[in-house]
Amino acid sequence: MMTVNYLECSREHFIFIRPKTVMGDTITIKDVARELGIHHVTVSRALRNTGAVKEETRVLIKKKALELGYKPNRLARDFRNKRSNVLAVVVPDLRPYFFSKFVSDFMETAKEAGYSVMIFQSGEKPGMEKDIIDSLIGYRVAGVVASVTKDTVQESHFDLLKEEGIPYVFFDRAPEETQASQVLVDNFKGAYDAVTAMIASGKKRIAYISTHYRHQIFRDRLAGYKQALRDHKIEISPDWIIEGGFFMKDGMEHAKQLMQLEHCPDGILAVRDEIAIGVIKYLKTSAYSIPEDIAVIGFDNDPMGIACEPELTTVQQSIPCMVGNSFELLLQQIKQSTILFDKKIIEPKIIYRGTV
Amino acid sequence: MMTVNYLECSREHFIFIRPKTVMGDTITIKDVARELGIHHVTVSRALRNTGAVKEETRVLIKKKALELGYKPNRLARDFRNKRSNVLAVVVPDLRPYFFSKFVSDFMETAKEAGYSVMIFQSGEKPGMEKDIIDSLIGYRVAGVVASVTKDTVQESHFDLLKEEGIPYVFFDRAPEETQASQVLVDNFKGAYDAVTAMIASGKKRIAYISTHYRHQIFRDRLAGYKQALRDHKIEISPDWIIEGGFFMKDGMEHAKQLMQLEHCPDGILAVRDEIAIGVIKYLKTSAYSIPEDIAVIGFDNDPMGIACEPELTTVQQSIPCMVGNSFELLLQQIKQSTILFDKKIIEPKIIYRGTV
Repeated sequence: MMTVNYLECSREHFIFIRPKTVMGDTITIKDVARELGIHHVTVSRALRNTGAVKEETRVLIKKKALELGYKPNRLARDFRNKRSNVLAVVVPDLRPYFFSKFVSDFMETAKEAGYSVMIFQSGEKPGMEKDIIDSLIGYRVAGVVASVTKDTVQESHFDLLKEEGIPYVFFDRAPEETQASQVLVDNFKGAYDAVTAMIASGKKRIAYISTHYRHQIFRDRLAGYKQALRDHKIEISPDWIIEGGFFMKDGMEHAKQLMQLEHCPDGILAVRDEIAIGVIKYLKTSAYSIPEDIAVIGFDNDPMGIACEPELTTVQQSIPCMVGNSFELLLQQIKQSTILFDKKIIEPKIIYRGTV
Repeated sequence: MMTVNYLECSREHFIFIRPKTVMGDTITIKDVARELGIHHVTVSRALRNTGAVKEETRVLIKKKALELGYKPNRLARDFRNKRSNVLAVVVPDLRPYFFSKFVSDFMETAKEAGYSVMIFQSGEKPGMEKDIIDSLIGYRVAGVVASVTKDTVQESHFDLLKEEGIPYVFFDRAPEETQASQVLVDNFKGAYDAVTAMIASGKKRIAYISTHYRHQIFRDRLAGYKQALRDHKIEISPDWIIEGGFFMKDGMEHAKQLMQLEHCPDGILAVRDEIAIGVIKYLKTSAYSIPEDIAVIGFDNDPMGIACEPELTTVQQSIPCMVGNSFELLLQQIKQSTILFDKKIIEPKIIYRGTV
């Protein structure tokens, strides 16, 4: 008795069809364990992707479970079916403008379509993120939209959702090894275009300030920065690449460090607007003129960039576009009772103001 | 059989003791309906405070339900008891710095004490807020912290929590007619002190810019503004009191309107930092010097106030203090299985920077 079908099309378009008809529906973890002569705790671990189970055992267990038609968490799924108008959004931190705006706008979009939204903050902690995902089953959610922590590399804790047939979409930050639906920004291009804009305005010594995060999106921005310099035959200096911090004060410190170099930059790209504003504050107190002496570009299009003077030029990641795509991808899966693995890439756009 | 006891001490200290022992526990809405000869739908509406039920009928039904020992939502409560480490936070909007920071900090405080937090945004809509509160029962939450919408006057939709013995605490914005636990800011004093600070620096014509919200907290600020002027024998001019808008652009427009008056102000108090920054932007483009020609003060201590120049003087509502008090009030009730009606008032503080 097969209750699950996989139709693999391509890496980025992989369809999981939720079973429509259930026969018997009484296969438990113990049945699977008995069939294989393996302890039921091991079976449970393998099916939940928790704890240490040898890979070949895990494959064997999953194959047998599929063959027997094992369906986990029936009670939880029944609850979910009773309340299918709730969506969950999971973000690492609600304080940055990007996330609070995404969450708020997503809620409005969902509400117009008759869904309510519950929001969770993982605090950049993978353990917390896992607890949240585990709890979502009990909350009977119809779908999940998530941006993972900076340290989430694997997505095994999202498998529980997949097992329950609950669709999910990653936005902005996805685990590095995932086939799940995702809506990402072309971060490489964002940084590449920003550096190119500074070069076009005559700058030749361009520095890069990142946060301390090692997540893919920051690695992509760094790669875009380097590629733009290479393509314009401009030297890449390790002194001009600085990492660490998240706030205005970090930008101030980093700018000071850069401007004290013997060979100091004439352009600075920062991966967050708040850091870029710190850079501007330091430069102004040190009597540099912006953009004449030095150009500055940030990322995010945070309204804070309009408060400073000159107003900050920034790389915008269109939040309405990310919200729209995330919601559409999720809704499509909910309505079709299908889990799709699709990827949307949002083009970033430079918003020119006064710092280039 | 009485299962609920009320001990009324004073308006601000009203204790509701959750029943510890349950006898029988089989009284249903239909039993209450039969006893009174009223249709069970009416009884359900009256006990849930939903739909139209005549006030005297509602009182009669509630009295009878109490007398019979009716206890609603037993299934939901059982669930809740199984998962008592989840708290809910309900806010009108996650975008303003004040709310996103409160929610994020509350989550961290709760996490340290072993609680996880789910977050809801009512979008300033009382109907949405009601739906959220209704849903919290099913999510087995141990307690709720809420800041209500600008239009929430009554708190009847929170009664469901009370009926379930789920404690709740209002922070920043509470319904006007409530006896529930609350952590509020002394908004009257915040505005009073801000105006006094401007007067102390030599200003004599002080204007006030509010949002379009008619909530108590904005009325209190307006009252504080007026009282400070009265106490210093300074004229209150209706031309200098402007309402409407929430953002920087609104501040810019209002500042323009004020500065075009024949008798224009030399000090402006805005109820949000973002509005105050708009005021500063307009004044600078019109070549006014700040604070020499005109002083500006905002509310919230939004980091955006440090991005602008001069840096904004602001009335701070201590978020760590609000988070700490809200959490403590909630935890006390959860641990004691008691619903307390207690009120904490947080003293605001002026953060002096460059605009006074």
